[in-house]
Amino acid sequence: MTSSAPATRAYRRLSVEERRDQLLRAALTLFAHRAPEDVSLDDVAETAGVSRPLVYRYFPGGKQQLYEAALRSSADALVLCFAEAPAGPPTERLGRVLDRYLDFVDEHDAGFSALMRGGSVAETSRTCAIVDEVRRAAAEQILVHLGVPEPGARVRMMVRTWIAAVEAASLIWLDEDKRPSAGELRDWLVDHLVALLAATAATDEETAGVVRELLALETPSGPVGTLARRVLPLAGDAGHLLQDVSRK
Amino acid sequence: MTSSAPATRAYRRLSVEERRDQLLRAALTLFAHRAPEDVSLDDVAETAGVSRPLVYRYFPGGKQQLYEAALRSSADALVLCFAEAPAGPPTERLGRVLDRYLDFVDEHDAGFSALMRGGSVAETSRTCAIVDEVRRAAAEQILVHLGVPEPGARVRMMVRTWIAAVEAASLIWLDEDKRPSAGELRDWLVDHLVALLAATAATDEETAGVVRELLALETPSGPVGTLARRVLPLAGDAGHLLQDVSRK
Repeated sequence: MTSSAPATRAYRRLSVEERRDQLLRAALTLFAHRAPEDVSLDDVAETAGVSRPLVYRYFPGGKQQLYEAALRSSADALVLCFAEAPAGPPTERLGRVLDRYLDFVDEHDAGFSALMRGGSVAETSRTCAIVDEVRRAAAEQILVHLGVPEPGARVRMMVRTWIAAVEAASLIWLDEDKRPSAGELRDWLVDHLVALLAATAATDEETAGVVRELLALETPSGPVGTLARRVLPLAGDAGHLLQDVSRK
Repeated sequence: MTSSAPATRAYRRLSVEERRDQLLRAALTLFAHRAPEDVSLDDVAETAGVSRPLVYRYFPGGKQQLYEAALRSSADALVLCFAEAPAGPPTERLGRVLDRYLDFVDEHDAGFSALMRGGSVAETSRTCAIVDEVRRAAAEQILVHLGVPEPGARVRMMVRTWIAAVEAASLIWLDEDKRPSAGELRDWLVDHLVALLAATAATDEETAGVVRELLALETPSGPVGTLARRVLPLAGDAGHLLQDVSRK
């Protein structure tokens, strides 16, 4: 009994806000690495070193309320990953944003997977709205780095589809035991956006303008230069496709 | 009362299987254009011209069971869209597959949206598994047309991320009142895959082999030829990036 006395004293000393934070941190740790169906309120109470009724006193909505609070807090942290000073070659900024994003995915593996795959018992229109909010914030940040804070429909669709591709790639990466390395995945995702920009520029004037401005900011040793030098040799296999068909 | 007699007679004449089909067709029509939360069993009964208890007799699990049966039937129809003879230029086959897929999205607009966005009351791990089954079938078909039925990790990740991008683009397309035209969206999605193949070939030997074989099957007036001629002028803006940095 005496050994529990200090814990009991610490228990009493926390303010309402401190206690709420403590419970939320415990919930975050659990929800990060397990699907919501595999986390019980007893687990949260045990991780926080408190009683189950105390968890209910702070989160009367039970596990669903705790899950949503934890998700809210994770979403805010994730949005901060996207913040990057708009200076230097855009693909290098994007690489740093992706590094932070992939760190987040790595740290919240099972929880991230359960959240994004859908069908979880904790999924509601509210949790989906929080995820969509993060997607929107990500798209806005990418558009800032592409120099088009107020884009036309095609540019917006391009960025949003790329973000969906990044999400899908993250889930596959988790499924494949985090292979390739996060660094290789980041480089490939940057290449993916560069390729998509080039393909979209082929038929969309606004995107062509974005690409011209982006190219002017890039360096030979950066991602665009490296990709361009690696892709150009493919043109050798495409010689028969490059003739001007309009003259035939 | 006399006017309802013929309907009653028709009602009695249907076999169990015919009746089930009739109810399922009514459910499919309703679920295609409304979110599951906006469809009631009374709506299904009314559309099928039968009583509510009769719907329950055939689908004792109620709306959830009807929804899952309708989804199962839609998923089977969608998988058939991906079947395409493995002959001719791959990007043209892919264009025909995408035409059928976008027709499906067009015909099931609100239902497709509700299903794919998640957070629907009808979403369960079972409905998510059906959607994932369709994704897997789509990936397998694309891999057949790329000539790699047994792909390595990078090729598989590439195709699966492109499929996620296609899904995201479809949802955005529905949100934007189906603009651009389905034909323009199809062409852009084909260009997206071609660009992604080129970018992935830059660092993955298997993909480079896929690209070489694909290029050999393409024609100057096809999607790859058109895209290549449109993208090449961008190289003019990238001259400063193409110098060999290793010699610096």
